[in-house]
Parts: sequence; C-alpha cells; structure tokens
Amino acid sequence: MTDPRYDVIAIGNAVVDVIASCEDELVEELGLNRGGMTLIDEDRAKELYDAMPPARELSGGSAANTLAGLSTLGLQCAFIGQVAADQLGDVFRHDMRATGIDFDTPAREGEPATGRVMIFVTPDGERTMNTFLGAGQFLPAEALDEDLIASGAILYLEGYLWDPEEPRRAMRRAIDVAKAAGRKVAFTASESFVIDRHGDDFRAMIDDGVIDILFVNEHELVSLTGESDFDAGLAAIQDKVPVLVATRSADGAVCVANGERFETAAEPIDKVVDTTGAGDQFAAGFLSGHAKGQPIDECLKRGAVAAAEVISHYGPRPEVDMKALMAEKLG
Amino acid sequence: MTDPRYDVIAIGNAVVDVIASCEDELVEELGLNRGGMTLIDEDRAKELYDAMPPARELSGGSAANTLAGLSTLGLQCAFIGQVAADQLGDVFRHDMRATGIDFDTPAREGEPATGRVMIFVTPDGERTMNTFLGAGQFLPAEALDEDLIASGAILYLEGYLWDPEEPRRAMRRAIDVAKAAGRKVAFTASESFVIDRHGDDFRAMIDDGVIDILFVNEHELVSLTGESDFDAGLAAIQDKVPVLVATRSADGAVCVANGERFETAAEPIDKVVDTTGAGDQFAAGFLSGHAKGQPIDECLKRGAVAAAEVISHYGPRPEVDMKALMAEKLG
Repeated sequence: MTDPRYDVIAIGNAVVDVIASCEDELVEELGLNRGGMTLIDEDRAKELYDAMPPARELSGGSAANTLAGLSTLGLQCAFIGQVAADQLGDVFRHDMRATGIDFDTPAREGEPATGRVMIFVTPDGERTMNTFLGAGQFLPAEALDEDLIASGAILYLEGYLWDPEEPRRAMRRAIDVAKAAGRKVAFTASESFVIDRHGDDFRAMIDDGVIDILFVNEHELVSLTGESDFDAGLAAIQDKVPVLVATRSADGAVCVANGERFETAAEPIDKVVDTTGAGDQFAAGFLSGHAKGQPIDECLKRGAVAAAEVISHYGPRPEVDMKALMAEKLG
Repeated sequence: MTDPRYDVIAIGNAVVDVIASCEDELVEELGLNRGGMTLIDEDRAKELYDAMPPARELSGGSAANTLAGLSTLGLQCAFIGQVAADQLGDVFRHDMRATGIDFDTPAREGEPATGRVMIFVTPDGERTMNTFLGAGQFLPAEALDEDLIASGAILYLEGYLWDPEEPRRAMRRAIDVAKAAGRKVAFTASESFVIDRHGDDFRAMIDDGVIDILFVNEHELVSLTGESDFDAGLAAIQDKVPVLVATRSADGAVCVANGERFETAAEPIDKVVDTTGAGDQFAAGFLSGHAKGQPIDECLKRGAVAAAEVISHYGPRPEVDMKALMAEKLG
C-alpha cells in the first residue's frame, strides 16, 4: 500500500445550480417538495424554469461541493463525474479546477445536456431542489480512472448518484478498487428518497463493513434504520460504521466514532440566506479535520463552521478564505 | 402619435456576467484594465477564464440591467438584443422574461456563442470587466421590430453596443424610428473607450438634438467634451441635451435639466461588495422617476438608492423588492 497521492477522491453529480429566491406561495403553486430534492425530467425542468424568477448560476453537486470545501481548506482532491460537452459543462469544469481540484472525466458528447438543479429559496432560507440529472446519469464504470481511485486516502460517494443505474455500477466498482488499495470509503446518504429506493443496498454495505465514514441527517437516519427516534437510529448502526456523523440542522450534529459519542452545537449566524450546501459543507469541514487526524470534537466544530459560512450566502460552496475562518473560529 | 405601449424599449448587449472575486495581484498579473471594460476575443476569453477563480453566472449587459431595474420598479419594458441559440442565451432570455421584460429577438444559430463578460471583483468592490461580445456583435438592423420601437415612450441605447458595426447601424435605424414616432431617445455613454472611438458620432447626435436624455460618468464627460474639468464638461453640452445626468461614483450625481442644475449625494451603504451594475441601476432609478414625470430631485435620489442596492451584493441587477425599497427611502 503506497502513500495516497490525494486526500479525497469523490464521485458525484456534475451539475450547475440555478438558484432563485421566491415567495412561499410559488413553491405551493408549483407543487414542489419543500425543503427536499426531487428528480425531474426535461419537460418538467422546462416548465419549472419558465415559472422561475431571475436566477444565478453556480456550480453545484453534493460531493463536488464537499470537494470544493475540502480544497479551499487545503486538501488534495480529485473529482469524477459526468458533464456534457456544453457551456454548463464548461462552467462546472472551470469552477472545479479553479478551486484546485483535479477533474479529468471526459465530457459526454450529444444529448442530454449537463445536469442542472433548479433551486427555489424561500424567505426563511430553505432551499427546494429540482434536479434534472442530464449527462450525469450516464457516468459509466469504464470512465473510472482506477489508478486515480486507488491513489486517494478517502473515496467519497454521494447517495444522490446511487439512483441512476450506470453511476451506481461505477460507484460499486470504485468501492472495490478503493478497498483493494486499503483506502477508506465515505458515504453521504444525501436524501431520504434515495434510502427509500436503495436502502437495502446501503444497509448491506453497512452490514458488510464497507462504509468507514457515513454522513446522514435526522430524516435519513430514520429512513435508513427504521427507528423513529434519533438516538435509537444511531444505536442501530453505530457499531457497524467506524465514524458515523449525523447532522440535525439548527440543532447541531452528533458523531459516534468507535463507540464514543461527540456533539457540537450549530455555529450561530446572523441570517440564514440559503441553506443550499449546508450538509455538503458540514461534511467538508468534518473531513478536513478527520483526514488530517484531528480529534472528533474538532472535526465536528469545523463542520459546524463550514456549514454556517455557506448558509449565510447564496450558493453551495464557500465564498470566504476558509483556512482563515477556521483559524479564527478554532484558534 | 398614439399613446406608447411601453415605458422603455432598450437595445443593448445580451451577455451573461461571469463574476469572481479575486485579489488585486491577479488583476495585475493578467494585465487587466482595472475598473474598466475591455473588449476581448475568444482566445483571450479562454485564457482569462482559465486564470479566473471559481465564479457565479448572472445575466448582464448594461441596458439589459437597466431594464431589469426599471421592470422591478413597475415600468413596462421590452428589450432588443442578440443571443446565440445556446445555454447561456437561454439563461439570458429566461432572466429577462422572468423580470417581466418582453424579449423576442430571435436567437442566432451557429457560432459565435452568446456573449459573456468576465468580471474580476477586487476586495475594494471594484469590478474589472472583460467582454467577449459573441453573438451580440451581429445584431442586424433587419432584426428590429420597428412597431415595437415606435411603441415605447423612451428608446434607451447603450454606448457599448455602438462599437460593433451591425448593432450601430441597427441603433441608428432605431433612433430614426423612435424620432419619427415622437419618442424620446436616452443614451448611456458606457465607457470612455467607446467615446474615444466614436466620439464624433455622439457629438454629432448631441449637436443635432437627437439625444433627449444622456447618462455619463465623470471620465466619459471628459472624453466627450474635451474639457478636463467636470463643471466645464457639463457647461459644454448642457444646452444641447434636455436632460443630462452625470454620475460621480461615491460623490453622487448631478443632473442639468433644461438649464437648471440638481445634485444628489451617494446613498450610504455598509460595504461595497461589487460595483458591477452601479451606473446601470443609477440610470434605472433615475428613469423610473423621470418616465413617470417625477421632479428631477426625486429622480436623482431614486438613482442613488438603486445604485446603492446593487453594489451591496454580487451581480448587476436588483435582488430586493425595489418598489418597497424606494417607498422606504423616498417616503
């Protein structure tokens, strides 16, 4: 087992976020799944875009956002994901590389276009996501650079991408490659609906000890374990996952690591502008410490600081000097 | 002369802004024209984009930004401009229509792509713009809907678009149509380099009494008149332009209307985040009052309020309820 060349390699959706603020009434009128993420087809994407207020475009994707956070915190990162050969694909690639992330998965020619997520942000800062996966759903296992995957200390996977068949097969292959190289596998559950559809896969991986680091929120923990109570949910899987991180929005987060429980409060902020990316940046903050061997208490605090930064502005990725912010907040 | 159907019809660049914050050093290293707007070709656009930090995309274009401001202030507006049939063109069109603006100029097939402006925002909030005009430079006179132009009380034109030949011809034709219909012509000088290249055109139009409302900043006033002193500059043309508006950044603005001089201070704000769109929104605030017959003092104040809003966040268009903001600030 050679020393890893990268701290984190991620496989995830390669999408551009289209973010508009809107009143609560519009979310009602359009019949959106408030606060959630809904997969939509091209016709529905057109319909929603026509009804959407003026928007801003920023590169997104859950794992990609986490990598962006990790990279700004100084970690060496590489990304694997599928864009199309189009303008939004160029935007996504630019933003990844400009953040210092290696991203060399070739663009896919022809239709569909690069995926996009239409995000309606209500006055309370809550984001309601509507995702047209586009080219992303065709990430083929053959596109994986297996040497690359073997060269990362942590392989980070997002649950959103477990839903379409080709990327799921690619991620299964990537897990095998990472495990064979003695690397850790981190997984973020992403959304309850993914667990509703693929919970058996996740539970089997947890039972088999495949997942070394698992990120869930309260709802996902419930869906995953079938327990209705947060603590019972933790108890149900904490012995099978070496590092289990459960976020609870404004109530902070809990980590159970090798049987020991740690907690952090949420970092206070003046105003929640847009919660897009909160979980992604919590994961980035946490992993930025964990990958460097920091104590779990500090990892949780770093997660809380990163999440607080990203929800204080529009867009899913950090906009300030994160190293300086961490130094200020953690001393 | 029938009653106009629109308050303002604008012809302008149809571009998407690509906005990144960066350190002052990068502006130096790349040899950018700090604080200005530079026209670039496709190769230079690629070079600058490769060197650019992660960015956000927002629809831009000087006159288009002004229309967006006017529309959010309740005016009836239509836009004429050239996008390509591509994703960024779709983004631009969506944002115009979602702001309530009629925009029906057909997209242009094939190369070049929709224009974009790479904007580097330094820590002082100053924006440095690098514009690849793309499809915009091919707006043909034949694309003008002359009935539409005749149906607007004010025809608003941006100087940036005077530089490429086809749009210049289209704007000359539009001026003739508007004048024949008894409408007013408003012009924004946009940038000193435009006046350096086309000052004779502008001076001839001013001498001929074609321009009813003229927006300039200090530098443009100097370039246009050849006077080195602000007041001498005003004096040189104020008798030839019924409404002359000269902005002075943090020093507020002056309007000379039919020989009478009015002034406003800049509206105080906590922090300048991004000056992109400051002049465009000043024009929107001013015109929103002027088109409705408000006193010049109030028009200037409205301009100052609109400019202050837009420089307090990234992006060239308003992000708050502008009617409510005006009501709060003007009582």
